[in-house]
Amino acid sequence: MATRAKEFPQCAFRQTLDVLEGKWKFAIIDSLLQHEVLRFKELERDVAGITARMLVKELKLLEAHGIVRRQPYATVPPTVEYSLTDCGHSLQPVIEAIRTWGEQNKAALQPA
Amino acid sequence: MATRAKEFPQCAFRQTLDVLEGKWKFAIIDSLLQHEVLRFKELERDVAGITARMLVKELKLLEAHGIVRRQPYATVPPTVEYSLTDCGHSLQPVIEAIRTWGEQNKAALQPA
Repeated sequence: MATRAKEFPQCAFRQTLDVLEGKWKFAIIDSLLQHEVLRFKELERDVAGITARMLVKELKLLEAHGIVRRQPYATVPPTVEYSLTDCGHSLQPVIEAIRTWGEQNKAALQPA
Repeated sequence: MATRAKEFPQCAFRQTLDVLEGKWKFAIIDSLLQHEVLRFKELERDVAGITARMLVKELKLLEAHGIVRRQPYATVPPTVEYSLTDCGHSLQPVIEAIRTWGEQNKAALQPA
C-alpha cells in the first residue's frame, strides 16, 4: 500500500483510495463513528464478518495513517481501546455519502 | 464478492462496500465522471497504474452491478465505449467526499 501511494504522489484522490483501500476500513471507521470508543473484541463483534487477524492488520494501517487512535491501559489483563482521531472523524461525510448511495441504489447491490 | 454481499443482505452500507471494494473502482468511476465516454485504451491510460487485466475485471463487475454501461460498435476493428449509467453518475457525491477529504488530510496520506 505504501508503495502504491508513493507511485502517485501528485494526486490526493488516488492516495486517499490507497489509504482507504478495501471494504474493511470503511466498516471499521463507521463502527467507531457510531460507538466512539471500542475495545478490540467489541470492534470485532461490531464489524460482522471480519477476522481477528484482518482487524489487527487494518487497525495498524489506520493507526499508522493517523485515522485511528490506540489507547492501551495497564490493567490486568491489559485492555486496549480504539477511537477515531480528528482526522478519522473527518471521514464522516464520506461514510454518509456511501450510506446514502447504498440506500438509494439497492438494485445495484444485488449479487452480480 | 457476490458471496460476501449475500452474507449481509440486511445492510445496504456493507453491501455498498462489497460492490465498490478496492481502490480501482472509485478511480474508474472518477475517470468516467470526468470524461463521460471512454474507450478501453483511453480508460487504461487515464486510470494510471491499472493493468489491462484488472481493468477488464473491474469493468465487468461494475457493468454487472449496473454502474457502468458497455457499448460495443461493429466497426473494423471493433470498438467499445464505456460510460456511467444514471446509477453510476449518482456516485458523484461519494467521489467528491473522498476527494475533499484527501485534499484536507494530506498528512494522513503519507506512506505508513
